[in-house]
Amino acid sequence: MNFASDNVWGVAEPVMAALRDANEGAAGAYGGDDLTRDLEVRFGEIFECDVSMYLVPTGTAANALAAAAYCPPYGMLFCHDESHIYFDECGASEFYTGGAKLMPIASDGGIIDPDVFADIVKIHMTNPGHCSTPAMFSLTQATEFGRVYAPGQIAALTAIARDNGLATHMDGARFANALVSVGCSPAEMTWKAGIDALSFGATKNGVMGADALLFFDGKPHEGLASRLMRGGLLMSKSRFLAAQLIAYLADNLWLDLAKQANGTAKKLADGLSRSNCARLVWPVSANEIFAVLPVDRHEKLKAAGAIYHPWMTAGPSREKATGADEILVRLVTSPSTPENSVDEFLAILAG
Amino acid sequence: MNFASDNVWGVAEPVMAALRDANEGAAGAYGGDDLTRDLEVRFGEIFECDVSMYLVPTGTAANALAAAAYCPPYGMLFCHDESHIYFDECGASEFYTGGAKLMPIASDGGIIDPDVFADIVKIHMTNPGHCSTPAMFSLTQATEFGRVYAPGQIAALTAIARDNGLATHMDGARFANALVSVGCSPAEMTWKAGIDALSFGATKNGVMGADALLFFDGKPHEGLASRLMRGGLLMSKSRFLAAQLIAYLADNLWLDLAKQANGTAKKLADGLSRSNCARLVWPVSANEIFAVLPVDRHEKLKAAGAIYHPWMTAGPSREKATGADEILVRLVTSPSTPENSVDEFLAILAG
Amino acid sequence: MNFASDNVWGVAEPVMAALRDANEGAAGAYGGDDLTRDLEVRFGEIFECDVSMYLVPTGTAANALAAAAYCPPYGMLFCHDESHIYFDECGASEFYTGGAKLMPIASDGGIIDPDVFADIVKIHMTNPGHCSTPAMFSLTQATEFGRVYAPGQIAALTAIARDNGLATHMDGARFANALVSVGCSPAEMTWKAGIDALSFGATKNGVMGADALLFFDGKPHEGLASRLMRGGLLMSKSRFLAAQLIAYLADNLWLDLAKQANGTAKKLADGLSRSNCARLVWPVSANEIFAVLPVDRHEKLKAAGAIYHPWMTAGPSREKATGADEILVRLVTSPSTPENSVDEFLAILAG
Amino acid sequence: MNFASDNVWGVAEPVMAALRDANEGAAGAYGGDDLTRDLEVRFGEIFECDVSMYLVPTGTAANALAAAAYCPPYGMLFCHDESHIYFDECGASEFYTGGAKLMPIASDGGIIDPDVFADIVKIHMTNPGHCSTPAMFSLTQATEFGRVYAPGQIAALTAIARDNGLATHMDGARFANALVSVGCSPAEMTWKAGIDALSFGATKNGVMGADALLFFDGKPHEGLASRLMRGGLLMSKSRFLAAQLIAYLADNLWLDLAKQANGTAKKLADGLSRSNCARLVWPVSANEIFAVLPVDRHEKLKAAGAIYHPWMTAGPSREKATGADEILVRLVTSPSTPENSVDEFLAILAG
Repeated sequence: MNFASDNVWGVAEPVMAALRDANEGAAGAYGGDDLTRDLEVRFGEIFECDVSMYLVPTGTAANALAAAAYCPPYGMLFCHDESHIYFDECGASEFYTGGAKLMPIASDGGIIDPDVFADIVKIHMTNPGHCSTPAMFSLTQATEFGRVYAPGQIAALTAIARDNGLATHMDGARFANALVSVGCSPAEMTWKAGIDALSFGATKNGVMGADALLFFDGKPHEGLASRLMRGGLLMSKSRFLAAQLIAYLADNLWLDLAKQANGTAKKLADGLSRSNCARLVWPVSANEIFAVLPVDRHEKLKAAGAIYHPWMTAGPSREKATGADEILVRLVTSPSTPENSVDEFLAILAG
Repeated sequence: MNFASDNVWGVAEPVMAALRDANEGAAGAYGGDDLTRDLEVRFGEIFECDVSMYLVPTGTAANALAAAAYCPPYGMLFCHDESHIYFDECGASEFYTGGAKLMPIASDGGIIDPDVFADIVKIHMTNPGHCSTPAMFSLTQATEFGRVYAPGQIAALTAIARDNGLATHMDGARFANALVSVGCSPAEMTWKAGIDALSFGATKNGVMGADALLFFDGKPHEGLASRLMRGGLLMSKSRFLAAQLIAYLADNLWLDLAKQANGTAKKLADGLSRSNCARLVWPVSANEIFAVLPVDRHEKLKAAGAIYHPWMTAGPSREKATGADEILVRLVTSPSTPENSVDEFLAILAG
Repeated sequence: MNFASDNVWGVAEPVMAALRDANEGAAGAYGGDDLTRDLEVRFGEIFECDVSMYLVPTGTAANALAAAAYCPPYGMLFCHDESHIYFDECGASEFYTGGAKLMPIASDGGIIDPDVFADIVKIHMTNPGHCSTPAMFSLTQATEFGRVYAPGQIAALTAIARDNGLATHMDGARFANALVSVGCSPAEMTWKAGIDALSFGATKNGVMGADALLFFDGKPHEGLASRLMRGGLLMSKSRFLAAQLIAYLADNLWLDLAKQANGTAKKLADGLSRSNCARLVWPVSANEIFAVLPVDRHEKLKAAGAIYHPWMTAGPSREKATGADEILVRLVTSPSTPENSVDEFLAILAG
Repeated sequence: MNFASDNVWGVAEPVMAALRDANEGAAGAYGGDDLTRDLEVRFGEIFECDVSMYLVPTGTAANALAAAAYCPPYGMLFCHDESHIYFDECGASEFYTGGAKLMPIASDGGIIDPDVFADIVKIHMTNPGHCSTPAMFSLTQATEFGRVYAPGQIAALTAIARDNGLATHMDGARFANALVSVGCSPAEMTWKAGIDALSFGATKNGVMGADALLFFDGKPHEGLASRLMRGGLLMSKSRFLAAQLIAYLADNLWLDLAKQANGTAKKLADGLSRSNCARLVWPVSANEIFAVLPVDRHEKLKAAGAIYHPWMTAGPSREKATGADEILVRLVTSPSTPENSVDEFLAILAG
């Protein structure tokens, strides 16, 4: 019963096989290999547009490089107040931008309200030269709380960004989970909805350690290759990153894996809803569940070996949780989560 | 009728005279002069303790160097959400720390509630290695909204900081204004209330351009002299900075100037209160007034040549302002503000 | 005939097998897994001391994190003037330190002369507060030019560093190649010779993408885990990094691989020496060869498909090369370099 | 007999008077005052072109902001190996650029040879993405060793820079001294010779603390105002900086002051040359003298109260100094250096 995170699980078989297949002979280092070139073409097909791609070993790297590409040291990056880039990356975006300011926007489970966003941007436009310069907007899809934006919601936010001269970024650490949840095309969820750059996550969805920063904006990003190098992020044997993602994107593997994870989450969420003792904090749209449990059941589950994280949030979600005898917890599913661990979890909860 | 800021006014006569007096012969550069040494001793007397002093040309420099002294690049600095360091310095603290995270705390006119502070610190203690490390707490005295902490309120906040291993800093851009408002000693308002470092502002109160970063913590601050140099902040002819502050501190000049500015603010605030059309947003304790004016009176004042800033705030103060026909404005007084400009302002307002 | 670099080749079989073996069930993320813990213990055994370990995806990351651990933003890091950290990492150490100064030392093929080092340190000690503060010394073993220090030579340099309060670092991107070349123990080549921290390279010697930063200094390195995260370097599925290195260190695989690469280099170097037309710039002690070739033979080799880099150096090595009809080239061997490519290369060279 | 530096002396009378004159009434803060606007116009007249001006309290700030304007974090800035920006500013340019690399060029008394410069640029163009990107060239006029470039020499260097896409900067901490030495116009010594930006120094030549960064390139420098603020360099009462420089530029005061300082230096240099015991290291073209003295005379001078710095240099100048019983010293004159201190110095030297 391990629901600690999607990254506690391993690697999908086709991805592992691709690593072995890639291990033949010599290949150009630092991205100068055929697989890396092929992958960039493949991304272009999947997103139905020209794509500029940077391979990275972590999603945090993708996010921080996107920030560096769009936000100068004296710039301001708007994001929601419990986002990964704001809360969970030890200041990676501050580091890669050279000290830009991340301005938090109050959200509901990571979903930003356009009016709230428009308002906070306006305030920060009034004092140039004293206030950091608004430069970039980032949203997370699916959010860190398992919620999902519809493409129209994304477009409403990016329109505000664009009107104020801000570049737009999507943290897609769980992009596939969001995509199969919404049921639209990759293009519809990104550049057709006004997104300039995407952190395309794969590691949480069955890959060993390979994510990609994708640009749809058609602009040169001078210096990003240099930033990759000086970040210590440019892996010499890059073919092995590319091989992972080529396998991931082949034959709809990525979508199938996400469907599997989401399905398991839905099963678990339904069970929680039907229980007499737990309640969901937000609707479950992807592979993360935030639930309020009675403390006694929580302790029973822990004693039985269930692994998951109690959650403490900084934002308004706190008000949704929790009574004196209750605890807010996060449960995450992955493509590898055994079905029976859901059953077991619900049985113990039902107690 | 210029109430735009306290820094639109000039220099007190004794300070100007001191510059001329200091212009004799040769003196050690970069702080190696007698006046600089004398000033550090004088600060020690005034604060009744050993003081380590760094002279700087601006208050922003003092704040940012304090941040660099206490907050590592991966650290977190707590401050109120409309503070100067958070909102008005283009990310100076982010710059000097190498990309630390400034975590905003909701405040009421810049006054931080201990419970709110304790709560937000607690949240950020739960995820080390992912969340930036809580390292420093900064408050502003007097606040950017003209409010003032009593020493006991400061002590309540610094106790929380200390319990969590955070260093404490006071942005005293208007330190003298707060001091004469509270009526305590410099020591009582700072280190006796748990403050480790003070940005001692003087420029807004009749000095040409000289502030000081003072440490009360008795610790070595290795590298701060180097940071001063690499910030381009180490003025070679340092004797002229020291001369300004020696004159400022002599014969209670600094306190007399602050009393003058505060008195003018009180007179203006009283007039606003007694008017039938304006209202004060917060009690006026120092030399800044935040008031809500009817738009028609605002326009009349502007037409008559009154100079001041409409204000847009990001935090909860917004809720205090304002109706459809109203405007929130900031009015600042200085030791040099002519008395009659207050009378004139109130007369026009009364219409 | 690919002698472009050791990182154009793939992964040793036992390393690849270990990845597959590690892909079972769930494991703690971000280093909280058993394999990572086991690896740290294993390093302690190999180096015969307590070791503090940080796993990273690249050698550049290891080098830059070591710099961040020892060198403040206002610090100075001494290294040789053609070292990887100075010349080939796009300023990674400048980035991770927050803008420290890397001070180049003239070298002979990467080997630093103790007198030259002592002299340059002395100069930079004379002007504190104006000159960046000497803080760290880094050498490369084997050097970027395939030369190797004897332990006594290392000790002579680290003694100077220690006398001046500098921490010491070894860039061991090709550590195994140096070790088998010298024939001493890992401890003798590092901490017993005064080295505080080692970038333990493995990727160039048959690993997919896993290096380690090892500390022998017994000190806490507060914040390094945070720096790893904010660098985007903390791989969530860390077990796969650990698995690679455990396999690498098992059964002397790492030493066998290095012997293989060095042996191939020696064979090639011997052939070059015996040729009538090429000459070696430095003695070949590890797996890199710097040779001067006649331009016509170089063109013939290129036409025949030989892959290697012409070299342009900034330092005194330039004087060793090259006449008008000559070209300086770098040839690198790896454990996977086919034996017959050496024969083929030499045959074409012989014409 | 104080020859320690030009910044140990005070402020020219007209500059001091201008401060007093500027202390009337209210004026816009942060550069929004009439004097600041007037000064920018005045600079345009003096340099016979459109000038974009940023006022700063120190020359280090001007240099570092120029670097930030032209050199990205992953960029490379070429300068001579004993330049102020490389050697004496604790890494200010590294700080303001976010960790760019300053690449030292061997020089003769600060004068860079075009062939040497062309060669080092070429080397660093060969490995993009691994090597920091060549972005900027900076020279010092007059050099830190009192030497002066003719405009044609400057043009030869900036032509190489331009051919390689580098921006060009002149550190003019002693610009006036160079100008009166060369006898050309400000335009001829800067933009007509290919200089894009100038750190216009005044503090060393009779000003209290005010320098200017001037751009001649006609380009927008977005963000520089923000960088000024986040550096803590934007002085609120900016009128007092502008007032100093307006007085400095009026009635040829700046040139007269420089002539005075240079004349004193020439007198001292001539005396040293004529002495039987001292020798000049470089020709004396401005207000700095580098001389080799016998140790016994040096000790006698020190005992008699002469103040100046023994010098230790990192570059080739070392070879010019010094025998076993000799010492290399720096002697600096200023407009305020008393004539008789030169006589006294020479008399003691003559012994």
